[in-house]
Amino acid sequence: MTTATPSRRPRVVIVGGGFGGLEAARGLRKAPVDVTLIDRTNHYLFQPLLYQVATGLLSPADIAAPTRFLLRRQKNAKVLMADVESIDPVGRVVRADGGRLEVPYDYLVVAPGARHSYFGHPEWERLAPGLKTLADARELRQRFLLAFEDAEKSADPAEQKALLTFVVIGAGPTGVELAGILPEIAHRVIRTEFRRIDPTQARVLLLEGGPRVLPAFPEALAERAHRDLEKLGVDVRTGALVTAITPDAVSVGEERIPTRTVFWAAGNAASPLIRSLGAKTDRAGRALVESDLSLPGRPEVFVIGDAAAAALLPGVDLPAGPSPQWVPGLAAAAEQMGAHAAKMIVRTLENQPHRPFTYRNRGELAIIGRNKAVANFGKFTITGRFAFLTWLFVHLMLLVGFRNRVSVFLEWGYAYLTYRLGARLITDPESTRAARRAGDRSGG
Amino acid sequence: MTTATPSRRPRVVIVGGGFGGLEAARGLRKAPVDVTLIDRTNHYLFQPLLYQVATGLLSPADIAAPTRFLLRRQKNAKVLMADVESIDPVGRVVRADGGRLEVPYDYLVVAPGARHSYFGHPEWERLAPGLKTLADARELRQRFLLAFEDAEKSADPAEQKALLTFVVIGAGPTGVELAGILPEIAHRVIRTEFRRIDPTQARVLLLEGGPRVLPAFPEALAERAHRDLEKLGVDVRTGALVTAITPDAVSVGEERIPTRTVFWAAGNAASPLIRSLGAKTDRAGRALVESDLSLPGRPEVFVIGDAAAAALLPGVDLPAGPSPQWVPGLAAAAEQMGAHAAKMIVRTLENQPHRPFTYRNRGELAIIGRNKAVANFGKFTITGRFAFLTWLFVHLMLLVGFRNRVSVFLEWGYAYLTYRLGARLITDPESTRAARRAGDRSGG
Repeated sequence: MTTATPSRRPRVVIVGGGFGGLEAARGLRKAPVDVTLIDRTNHYLFQPLLYQVATGLLSPADIAAPTRFLLRRQKNAKVLMADVESIDPVGRVVRADGGRLEVPYDYLVVAPGARHSYFGHPEWERLAPGLKTLADARELRQRFLLAFEDAEKSADPAEQKALLTFVVIGAGPTGVELAGILPEIAHRVIRTEFRRIDPTQARVLLLEGGPRVLPAFPEALAERAHRDLEKLGVDVRTGALVTAITPDAVSVGEERIPTRTVFWAAGNAASPLIRSLGAKTDRAGRALVESDLSLPGRPEVFVIGDAAAAALLPGVDLPAGPSPQWVPGLAAAAEQMGAHAAKMIVRTLENQPHRPFTYRNRGELAIIGRNKAVANFGKFTITGRFAFLTWLFVHLMLLVGFRNRVSVFLEWGYAYLTYRLGARLITDPESTRAARRAGDRSGG
Repeated sequence: MTTATPSRRPRVVIVGGGFGGLEAARGLRKAPVDVTLIDRTNHYLFQPLLYQVATGLLSPADIAAPTRFLLRRQKNAKVLMADVESIDPVGRVVRADGGRLEVPYDYLVVAPGARHSYFGHPEWERLAPGLKTLADARELRQRFLLAFEDAEKSADPAEQKALLTFVVIGAGPTGVELAGILPEIAHRVIRTEFRRIDPTQARVLLLEGGPRVLPAFPEALAERAHRDLEKLGVDVRTGALVTAITPDAVSVGEERIPTRTVFWAAGNAASPLIRSLGAKTDRAGRALVESDLSLPGRPEVFVIGDAAAAALLPGVDLPAGPSPQWVPGLAAAAEQMGAHAAKMIVRTLENQPHRPFTYRNRGELAIIGRNKAVANFGKFTITGRFAFLTWLFVHLMLLVGFRNRVSVFLEWGYAYLTYRLGARLITDPESTRAARRAGDRSGG
């Protein structure tokens, strides 16, 4: 099946409907082109709040909206929900759905994002799921809630203790935010609901292989975040390299930490789609792009977002941290790259030369817990309650759509005032238990 | 593992945390007993609104709340999330989780509800899923939304037509409500979002084996509902017995209706748990109970809700319909039965005789679409916009918890005013596609 739409207008295909892909589509709304946005899911997802879905504070619909709803008024844009498997940059065609769908292009924007990297241990994935999609968030939520349910049923104190030990691996913003919210839920939200176990005995460990938490933030903020996490009761361990994960424990060097619930927030690898492009990649599988974000030798193909390794131009506002030479893997950066790719396509149609991409640093925030956050705006930093309120405000404003903003605002207000969460549901215990059992076989 | 809680107080075990089970637990809040409520899920579910989750209008968290949250203040109640597999009425023990959990009882309330009955065609289940749980609702929602997505990708008009044909089997309240909302979504909500297909061409068929829709309602209301459904564009067929379901079509007698999406709302069968009780059952597998809702010969065991066949007492307000001799399978009836079982347990402890259960008919409502509903209160009936508003009000009030009421109220208001739905998400396309493929093998 080939989508042979009769059209003389240039065909722009965008692979991936995240921050970068959607912004690229919107940037082409007035261009004389036919845009086809292809995504594996039917929705745009506000990933920075995914950990709040994973912990039952928000519902999936609070942070996601159907992609075709967001583009319904853009008449030159079409949305296809399909699983892109490969790109043929010579034949200029995108292949999806087991070869049943072929979408030819004149211009291509590749924005498939990243998946987790388990550093050569793919068998850890089922034992320590990560957090990229709504399905991931449901899986994390079920594992977290099922651990308490199973502990309440258990008569064995050692088993109860292992069930009430939660390990988060990786202390970037996602790991910090996840580790920070877990003790608050255990100690405040569900404290009164159990009869046999004491949820306040739940232990949360945050394991970071590097020397400190939040490596992309300035050192003073990282130290503050570390202290704030410890105040919340999180056992933070830096320089803690995980050597083994089994269904019963996580090992850090010689130490074996009995646990049944491990969450992965440690590493990213670009989508395997990048390989089919035949481009040069860095260690994380990201395509090394030109200064205009196009692929070397392929000015009609742009790679953006987490799938791109784009060098920062000298003289711009560089973020602090160990890898200052690359555009950081942030939502704001992906959006800027998407807008840039759209502009370069328009310039090509107007026979104008491409321009280099310049990253504008809008700052970076991480929430640690109730009234606790850190924010780095380059020229200044903030912490504590003011950073917490800034985080809430910024994330509310970044949400797409009035409905989501109202809904998330109400959920946050409700949770803040009542210490109750709205979405603490286990809908598929069997799928989670089956995944754990499969992990049992492969990892045990 | 045995739950050997040291206690001299009588142990009451409740199997199932639906309308009946929760009400039984609450009815025992002041009784000198230890209550254990066991449910397969971790939440109480307001099933009458499940079809709105299935169609993307509401989120799961809008109509469900954690059972242990609802019972957190009832200190004599404990909640266990476990899969009850059998009941030994002689040894007075409930077995769950593959025999790993055994819960002894002195008094037992059995409220496991019903599952779908496929009338001797279990292979139809994967091809035509029903609607009882949140997982079911997600599956229906995904099938409905994926059909539009697949139609947009298809270049074959016959395939597109089959993909845009939706068949609902069974015209009780669930089937009527589901069939009524589908054309509204296709014609109004997602009308502007597609480029290749015209969602207003979507066809909805409602197939009923009996002579009319809403068989439990008075004939005049059923006729009104039938006309209202046709006004909405639903192709309503009564006396239409389904003879085959395949991945590509539904057959009614000689007629073959090409479709890829079939929903089942036709028949119920009591939980298979009832068989392990060794009780006499009716054709639907429901336990035939005494007038006090206890099992014959087992005054310490009560069966309530959809799992019980309880005879209506003569002289009470009998509902209209073909089976007036049984207490109807309504939420209100299950709640009344749960409260009665709790009272009878208290009376036993007080050495007082049991009393017969009398059903109080609170009426029955079915919504058909925007401003269209029918309501039967026995002594009078209402239709149209007034019934629609009554339905909204009654269901808002019946929802458990302030949070859910506010949330559902806002979602309804938003959808009514904007013709937009908040939760049109496909989170697990692969699981739905896998289920369909499996259906392919078993049914094709």
